[in-house]
Amino acid sequence: MDYQISEKMKVMKPSAIREIFKSLTDPSIISFSAGNPAPESFPTEAMAKLAGDIFREDPINALQYGITEGYPALREDISARLRNKFGIGRDFDSTIVVTGGQQGIELACKVLCNEGDTVISENPSFIGALNAFRSNGMKTVGVPLDDDGINIPLLESAIKDNPRAKMIYLIPTFQNPAGITTSEEKRRAVYALAKKYGLIILEDNPYGELRFAGEEIPTIKSFDEDGIVIYCSSFSKILSAGMRVGYVCAPNTLVQKMVVAKQVEDVHTNMFFQIMTHRFIKEYDLDEHIDGIRALYRRKCSLMLETLDSEVGDTIKFTRPQGGLFVWCTLPAGTDLTEFVKRAISNKVAVVPGTAFNADQNAPSDSFRITYATPSEEQIVAGVKAIKKSL
Amino acid sequence: MDYQISEKMKVMKPSAIREIFKSLTDPSIISFSAGNPAPESFPTEAMAKLAGDIFREDPINALQYGITEGYPALREDISARLRNKFGIGRDFDSTIVVTGGQQGIELACKVLCNEGDTVISENPSFIGALNAFRSNGMKTVGVPLDDDGINIPLLESAIKDNPRAKMIYLIPTFQNPAGITTSEEKRRAVYALAKKYGLIILEDNPYGELRFAGEEIPTIKSFDEDGIVIYCSSFSKILSAGMRVGYVCAPNTLVQKMVVAKQVEDVHTNMFFQIMTHRFIKEYDLDEHIDGIRALYRRKCSLMLETLDSEVGDTIKFTRPQGGLFVWCTLPAGTDLTEFVKRAISNKVAVVPGTAFNADQNAPSDSFRITYATPSEEQIVAGVKAIKKSL
Repeated sequence: MDYQISEKMKVMKPSAIREIFKSLTDPSIISFSAGNPAPESFPTEAMAKLAGDIFREDPINALQYGITEGYPALREDISARLRNKFGIGRDFDSTIVVTGGQQGIELACKVLCNEGDTVISENPSFIGALNAFRSNGMKTVGVPLDDDGINIPLLESAIKDNPRAKMIYLIPTFQNPAGITTSEEKRRAVYALAKKYGLIILEDNPYGELRFAGEEIPTIKSFDEDGIVIYCSSFSKILSAGMRVGYVCAPNTLVQKMVVAKQVEDVHTNMFFQIMTHRFIKEYDLDEHIDGIRALYRRKCSLMLETLDSEVGDTIKFTRPQGGLFVWCTLPAGTDLTEFVKRAISNKVAVVPGTAFNADQNAPSDSFRITYATPSEEQIVAGVKAIKKSL
Repeated sequence: MDYQISEKMKVMKPSAIREIFKSLTDPSIISFSAGNPAPESFPTEAMAKLAGDIFREDPINALQYGITEGYPALREDISARLRNKFGIGRDFDSTIVVTGGQQGIELACKVLCNEGDTVISENPSFIGALNAFRSNGMKTVGVPLDDDGINIPLLESAIKDNPRAKMIYLIPTFQNPAGITTSEEKRRAVYALAKKYGLIILEDNPYGELRFAGEEIPTIKSFDEDGIVIYCSSFSKILSAGMRVGYVCAPNTLVQKMVVAKQVEDVHTNMFFQIMTHRFIKEYDLDEHIDGIRALYRRKCSLMLETLDSEVGDTIKFTRPQGGLFVWCTLPAGTDLTEFVKRAISNKVAVVPGTAFNADQNAPSDSFRITYATPSEEQIVAGVKAIKKSL
């Protein structure tokens, strides 16, 4: 049978990261390639206790259909936390639960954009978001990242050059893949540009709570007096990624449409883990738990940066993240990225080639992404040595 | 701010059922309107035990990111069960886990259809599917249901009248909302038409295992020698709806694209409940558990049909399902459906007006859907009496 695939899906390729992740069945390969949180960051004991409690006290709610907007008590927890801790959420906003931050990104795009519209993002950017835009038939345009965030004059040019631009997609804090954090000045400049040109900002902040160095910087959503920012985040990096519990805070008009779009994607998010997340917030100290994760990543990131300094500091250029999961490495001029990645695999370390993160799928790259989150301390050292060997 | 909603989402309204469900906070109202399985059908004790086991033995797998295709052991369980028990799945097919059967429907449509293409369905049909098609910018065309399934000559006319028809969407077994089961003869006729005109059949079978009367009829997918059927089902009605674990069995070429589309919707389905479903299948007797659910619904459905016979048998026409969750009732000619539904609510019974299930969103209806799954036996009797009072 000659299947006629839809135009928007015909151009889609499987995510390079997911594919690398799938191929990592060889346990002798050190994975610097995953986007996973450290398994030791999951509060397994507390969650085991809560699971027992829920099955004893509230099994039907946990196993029955729920409403699309999310478990009401969890929505309240999230709203209160966003407002009190991060200054996010005004009277025109509301908060819903989604199946991981990924779904929030996809829904935002589906609700706002027609096929042929443009999303402008940092370049490089998160492949899951870029692919969500592509799968909705959108054009992705990337704007280079400077050390302090997206290049503002080039962002304005991109807006002017793309009359069908609808949305600016940014990961301002501990960017994936680059590990860069956008300065407050630039965040305000992006907001001003979006307002000037009538664009919506999609602020993706999955790593925002994982700061282990430097000063907190307010989110773009916290400036949002005009109702032009959709804010997506999740519990994937602070409680559990596998449970798929994320959230969106956005102007209610948009949220209402996102709920309709979510209904037809999965009806609602897993109820049991919505209840568990609510109970964790009520019965445990989430902030204290997050402090533990920050300390863990501080240690692991320091080790990775130290090892990079000592092993490849004179050849590879790399970012120095103040939080999040990723370091972005740039090869010396003239190195063939594809060959390097293959040599790395044969030297037993997996990295993600930068091409995977390009807004333009056919553009070249001289960079790759590595993570310190999942490898052990021994693996961090051995993996960096394997990178050196692969140069 | 004047938000520019995408063309495809602009026309979407929230699902009438979900809206009714949300408004059902008044506990004195008997809900005949939900599409929920009976809460007593959940194997709560077994799931509680398994939850404890998973947290003790395999917490990291359950809480970490998984692969988009689904937990491998569960995929194998499902494939084996489909093949051995239902004759479903050939060498060109593969099976993936999705976030409820709903996601399977939405992904099938996304992968195959361009905006402006047509999906032909039974009329009435499942609102969640119709809305999934609409949210992908598709035209929905309904073909009347006879007592033994979709009207075949009218189906062929609809195909001829809609040159952009891409897919035939059917719920052949215990149809939602009509409770009708398509005969084997008609299933083969639909298959032959799809083959003749080069269309894909999307067979939705969430209720197929809930037969409590009559003879088993083979699924359309079991005839599929040509790779033209996408089969969607789930564990929602046999284990738990709130966990959101469904599956798709379809030709591998299509499944590969569906995986790419799923990646950008939610990365993967909740890992913990994928593992739990696998363990339930391995450690308990799923068929025996389902037998218990069938007995429960046999009892409840009999009671509802008897009460309908005795209370409103001379005025309301209704279907006599051999399985599933729903009875479809048609009012005497000249009754105003909207007024009837309002009177029913004031008489403390909630039903779903048939208009919600029309492929043509503006078409009238003289029917409504009720369920025996969630109300108690007392509520079934009282609710039918309230329906009588509302005539």
